[in-house]
Amino acid sequence: MTLPARVKLVEVGPRDGLQNEQAIVPTAIKVELIERLADAGLSAIEATSFVSPQWVPQMADNAEVLRALLAGPQRRPAPSYPVLTPNLKGFDAAVEAGAQEVAIFAAASETFSRKNINCGIAESLKRFAAVVDAASALEVRIRGYVSCVVACPYEGAVDPAKSAWVAERLLEMGCYEVSLGDTIGAGTPASIKRMIEACAAVVPIERLAGHYHDTYGMAIANIYASLELGMAVFDSSIAGLGGCPYAAGASGNVASEDVVYLLQGLGIECGVDMEKLLVASQFIAHFLGRQPASKVARALLARQSAR
Amino acid sequence: MTLPARVKLVEVGPRDGLQNEQAIVPTAIKVELIERLADAGLSAIEATSFVSPQWVPQMADNAEVLRALLAGPQRRPAPSYPVLTPNLKGFDAAVEAGAQEVAIFAAASETFSRKNINCGIAESLKRFAAVVDAASALEVRIRGYVSCVVACPYEGAVDPAKSAWVAERLLEMGCYEVSLGDTIGAGTPASIKRMIEACAAVVPIERLAGHYHDTYGMAIANIYASLELGMAVFDSSIAGLGGCPYAAGASGNVASEDVVYLLQGLGIECGVDMEKLLVASQFIAHFLGRQPASKVARALLARQSAR
Repeated sequence: MTLPARVKLVEVGPRDGLQNEQAIVPTAIKVELIERLADAGLSAIEATSFVSPQWVPQMADNAEVLRALLAGPQRRPAPSYPVLTPNLKGFDAAVEAGAQEVAIFAAASETFSRKNINCGIAESLKRFAAVVDAASALEVRIRGYVSCVVACPYEGAVDPAKSAWVAERLLEMGCYEVSLGDTIGAGTPASIKRMIEACAAVVPIERLAGHYHDTYGMAIANIYASLELGMAVFDSSIAGLGGCPYAAGASGNVASEDVVYLLQGLGIECGVDMEKLLVASQFIAHFLGRQPASKVARALLARQSAR
Repeated sequence: MTLPARVKLVEVGPRDGLQNEQAIVPTAIKVELIERLADAGLSAIEATSFVSPQWVPQMADNAEVLRALLAGPQRRPAPSYPVLTPNLKGFDAAVEAGAQEVAIFAAASETFSRKNINCGIAESLKRFAAVVDAASALEVRIRGYVSCVVACPYEGAVDPAKSAWVAERLLEMGCYEVSLGDTIGAGTPASIKRMIEACAAVVPIERLAGHYHDTYGMAIANIYASLELGMAVFDSSIAGLGGCPYAAGASGNVASEDVVYLLQGLGIECGVDMEKLLVASQFIAHFLGRQPASKVARALLARQSAR
């Protein structure tokens, strides 16, 4: 079993994380957080979401955040700042603000799709087709998400074939990559491997990413199991931002610090500087008035303060 | 790669966990905790430690705890209640209180051995030989621990050959099983696998157990990697009791709830009832005035309270 030599991390804390925080984080703090994450070496940072501020007030400053990043310090290579666009209206606003990459989000569970975006899976794919077409015409890259790839908070276990079918549709439509989300973190290496194997049977694994929540403490083991299958792209969230909307007080997205620690231990390159990542983690945790939800951050910070 | 069909868990919370808690837990609470753990199906529960109360005041009631358990409800099959015995004096006191199984503890790091038990590794093995001989004469079973099998808080990375050498000595001396401790939780699946492979090259893997701390959030991935190598015994601590003596505020022993969730997800039998385990977890967490340090416990309890 050979693990990938290099892994790409997609940092989702500023969007998927902060969107699920109670606090409305000021634009300047978001921009500083994202700049610090870029300084730490993260090459893809999901910056914001172009959804209605009535749905997601936390992301109401989407255009300001994106504009500030694009006008900020230039890095080579430039990080990508994908933004979430649920529909054509959001897409147009994102492009207007300078977006060069967008993301769309489907689900592998009918009930979750209806509750999350008010339409079934097939209907959601139709809606997204319009966004994909518009993006292709403008040479804007488009990434796809699939929620509930192993389990759904309403339906329970999800058939791996269902996840594979949605992933295949999104790639066919024109997404360059599909991120497979264990939205409620219920997966273990067994269910995660079954799901990836079903997906990799219909699409190249190079185009699949793992997006695992750590609700039950399984995310790092699930990433390890995914690496064993050759998956080499993972989403993670600085300081474990976001929590779990389906279980108050439980963990949400896997923490970027923990993923980087795992990868470093396995000798896998990811281009991220742990010291700088910890500074970014402390920056946002301090703003939110709590400890980072990352065991690595807590252990390393405890060691630092003991020196 | 075939995972074991069945795994044995050794619950170490009442000893390794409570020994590292600030609070002195009353005897009756300890006994009730252990009884609840036995009710949940745990067949091996480390009950206490026969060390000097000057060193470890938390375990000063060792004889009372063990006597209460042995006089308590009889289960079939009877759980084993191993107790830690650092020397012949402790061993005699343990046997006097009715111990049928004891445990001795060496280290794979010279510096850790000197700081923890005031003598080097070779000297510690000589001291333990007297305990093993006494135990063999009385047909008392003896389990061995090795600390710092992948890393030491003082020396850094530990040579896998060193861990294998100590494990082999303990088994040769007469231990029926050796528990390999990642005492500071620094290991990842790469270093854990190298260490197990070195050990399994000199002793049968059936006689090795994994004892992993979750300081850096890697314990569940490390258990998964160990299962892939065929290891089938793991130590864990209810509610993640114990914390980390080397990094205040960091996690300690991997939580039993998280290990049971992993095993259930992998379809591996361990004989533990999750509902009853959660009740035991809440019982001791409530006594200590905090949430269980187990993501599984927090997520399941959050779901219960949302019902």
